[in-house]
Amino acid sequence: MSNGDILVGEIIGTAILILFGAGVCAAVTLRHSKARASGWTVIAFGWGFGVLAGAYTAAPLSGGHLNPAVTLGIAVDTGEWGKVWLYLLGQMIGAMLGAALAYLVYFAQFQANVRGSDTTGGPADEPTPTLGIFSTIPEIRNPVANLVTEIIATIALVLPILAFGLTEGLGQSGTTVLIVSLLVVGIGLSLGGPTGYAINPARDLGPRIVHAFLPIPNKGTSDWAYAWVPVVGPLVGGTLAGLIYNAAF
Amino acid sequence: MSNGDILVGEIIGTAILILFGAGVCAAVTLRHSKARASGWTVIAFGWGFGVLAGAYTAAPLSGGHLNPAVTLGIAVDTGEWGKVWLYLLGQMIGAMLGAALAYLVYFAQFQANVRGSDTTGGPADEPTPTLGIFSTIPEIRNPVANLVTEIIATIALVLPILAFGLTEGLGQSGTTVLIVSLLVVGIGLSLGGPTGYAINPARDLGPRIVHAFLPIPNKGTSDWAYAWVPVVGPLVGGTLAGLIYNAAF
Amino acid sequence: MSNGDILVGEIIGTAILILFGAGVCAAVTLRHSKARASGWTVIAFGWGFGVLAGAYTAAPLSGGHLNPAVTLGIAVDTGEWGKVWLYLLGQMIGAMLGAALAYLVYFAQFQANVRGSDTTGGPADEPTPTLGIFSTIPEIRNPVANLVTEIIATIALVLPILAFGLTEGLGQSGTTVLIVSLLVVGIGLSLGGPTGYAINPARDLGPRIVHAFLPIPNKGTSDWAYAWVPVVGPLVGGTLAGLIYNAAF
Amino acid sequence: MSNGDILVGEIIGTAILILFGAGVCAAVTLRHSKARASGWTVIAFGWGFGVLAGAYTAAPLSGGHLNPAVTLGIAVDTGEWGKVWLYLLGQMIGAMLGAALAYLVYFAQFQANVRGSDTTGGPADEPTPTLGIFSTIPEIRNPVANLVTEIIATIALVLPILAFGLTEGLGQSGTTVLIVSLLVVGIGLSLGGPTGYAINPARDLGPRIVHAFLPIPNKGTSDWAYAWVPVVGPLVGGTLAGLIYNAAF
Repeated sequence: MSNGDILVGEIIGTAILILFGAGVCAAVTLRHSKARASGWTVIAFGWGFGVLAGAYTAAPLSGGHLNPAVTLGIAVDTGEWGKVWLYLLGQMIGAMLGAALAYLVYFAQFQANVRGSDTTGGPADEPTPTLGIFSTIPEIRNPVANLVTEIIATIALVLPILAFGLTEGLGQSGTTVLIVSLLVVGIGLSLGGPTGYAINPARDLGPRIVHAFLPIPNKGTSDWAYAWVPVVGPLVGGTLAGLIYNAAF
Repeated sequence: MSNGDILVGEIIGTAILILFGAGVCAAVTLRHSKARASGWTVIAFGWGFGVLAGAYTAAPLSGGHLNPAVTLGIAVDTGEWGKVWLYLLGQMIGAMLGAALAYLVYFAQFQANVRGSDTTGGPADEPTPTLGIFSTIPEIRNPVANLVTEIIATIALVLPILAFGLTEGLGQSGTTVLIVSLLVVGIGLSLGGPTGYAINPARDLGPRIVHAFLPIPNKGTSDWAYAWVPVVGPLVGGTLAGLIYNAAF
Repeated sequence: MSNGDILVGEIIGTAILILFGAGVCAAVTLRHSKARASGWTVIAFGWGFGVLAGAYTAAPLSGGHLNPAVTLGIAVDTGEWGKVWLYLLGQMIGAMLGAALAYLVYFAQFQANVRGSDTTGGPADEPTPTLGIFSTIPEIRNPVANLVTEIIATIALVLPILAFGLTEGLGQSGTTVLIVSLLVVGIGLSLGGPTGYAINPARDLGPRIVHAFLPIPNKGTSDWAYAWVPVVGPLVGGTLAGLIYNAAF
Repeated sequence: MSNGDILVGEIIGTAILILFGAGVCAAVTLRHSKARASGWTVIAFGWGFGVLAGAYTAAPLSGGHLNPAVTLGIAVDTGEWGKVWLYLLGQMIGAMLGAALAYLVYFAQFQANVRGSDTTGGPADEPTPTLGIFSTIPEIRNPVANLVTEIIATIALVLPILAFGLTEGLGQSGTTVLIVSLLVVGIGLSLGGPTGYAINPARDLGPRIVHAFLPIPNKGTSDWAYAWVPVVGPLVGGTLAGLIYNAAF
């Protein structure tokens, strides 16, 4: 793969991933959305099928990592570190681009995030905090516990991805990405409860930067105090997954 | 593929797609349906599995486009425009046929869409507007924003479809349609909130024409003022996806 | 395939299908079930994955039809009628066996279907009619409309199944049954609203016979007046699907 | 496969399975979880995708049984009993490890399982019994009926798994595990209502042991009186599935 292909692939693929992921959070969160309040199943499947869409699109160009934790786990496994920076660069640019696209898709909904757009005038008419559409927010703020959650959830993502390459009949098959996308649905359903499962530093940091700059009415805080947890946790988890894989397989 | 096969394939395939898609909207919308009010997940999976059913059926005859935006994206990519009109003709006929079949499946439910069929006599007893079963209605009516939503959502459909052909082990594989159908589920979950995701001009215009002519009790408006958005948006999106694909891959 | 293999395969496969299908209806319907009132998505996926389980199990023995409408559609297509009776016999025996197994799985729940088992003593404490666990019941009783619904829904099942055999890379592939099972989920979501989608004469008639004989407390009527619709409709639909397939493909 | 590979594979795979399975039960059960009260669909898909994640990871090392009932069914079928003890040992260790990991992921939520952490002070503020996160609890306590439920549900798991090996194009294919994981989703939806579907002795006994030792606030009983049912039932079911398979196929 050429450097250009890797960069373009990771930008396009990660942009699609975040378009779907931030999109589904907007769909469930914002007033005047047809999917309003449709629950956790929708969130988990929306993110999983974002992986499906983004990774299949990026696969012929860059292999479709879309996640610094995956890139790191593969580098720890293979020992090839030369192009890691290129993957990470593409992933960060793509994540910011995807967050901006999701903002455009839900532009009218974001503009209506003001008091008075819900004609009831009751509590449901208060503006909705919007950070949760872009980045993760823990249910209980406890940095050590949140970090442990993100580390374990990321191992549960990266270790299977590394092992899939060894599974007979799967490694070279076009269904691998489908299976990874269902794995991501599973992580969302099972391990997303405490922190909202970043499991991907670019997925959390890129959209958080975009959130800080976008002119959204009543957007609320970008919560920079928490921003390090969904970056450090997945990087540690991806590294540990690579080490476990090398030791066990 | 012969002209006859293309026409028949697109008619049958698009008819099945719309039968499932309009069917699931009827299932969730109409009183006296077992799936009444069962939510957005049902809508998104119903449309996605409609793609599965229609595209696999049409695949051996026409390749199973079922969508002018897909046909346009492929034509922009390949430069072959000779049979585009045939695909579009089949898709429009099929979409109208499918809407009529969905009407027949829910005939008794449509007939019961009158005041008094719900014995409560309360507000739930008012007739339901029926256009949403056939065509898309935006949550917030803002033609520019709605157009942008449809353009981006259609790119998110057509660009991955074009890229799947390059993915190792997937291009010629029988699982491609399965993956596209889950992609459509994902678009519904993530990007369907603002406009109801037409992402297919035939899917919106064909059933709208049928809605205008069907003798449904209390059917409400066919909303022709909005009809251009879900036609123009997907056509622009499909063209842009073809151009992006040619530039990036 | 030997006659014995066909008979055993269809009995085991259809028994598993109905075990899952009647099971999921019991799971959602009966008090003291963990899946109580969990909605239409659960019903549709439960039946679809019943097809997955039953058809993959039966495939090496009988090909896994599990449905007289499928057997009929294939016979109309191929002109081979010699073993049709054997398939139908196996399907009816299997459907009855599966209904009995589902009854055993939910035995304690059926025994608790009496006034007083719900300690509230309110309306929720009334016994639940149990026929809907075994056989289909239309939401609006209109035999002609119900028949049309079952005919169209069965065409939407059998025509794609026949066409899948032609789809490149799918016909001989082990993923065909997976795709058929998701097709069945889609039919449930989209076309199941009016009649509960029998789309299979054995699936409706076999369990209805078992329901008539089982000693379930407060089981309610077996509704024999409606029993012909979910038998005749699917048989007509399967035949029409075979004729459409021969004409169009 | 070497003895070491089998042991390591079963430990890692079963740990991932239980991490996802206990995780999804925590996600739905505990206060301060984003998936709180999101219903039975989430439970069933969470466990199914836990099978996906664990079995694909373990497949290249041990074949990915992850379940003594599966190991037993295969041993009855093949007559090879030499390494059964190794599989069972790995499965028990893995199940305990996975339960401990799920506890760590939801550590802050478990710590908040005290009166007063919900600021309402109402009935919703009472601590939640936690055993259901680790092990199964029947809805109606009736050992004979519960045992029959577990036996039939386990046959519905193991018999299809044995038959998949014979299905043309599936036996050696990388999609087998995907299909088994959807089969497990189906068993959850359809047959999980009465007992919560252990269908795996290690899945129930391992986490129950861990539950007995973990210092969870207000954890409630570990219910050892019921513990034999979800061990004996699946072992009988797996054996019967092997015998049925040998007789019928």
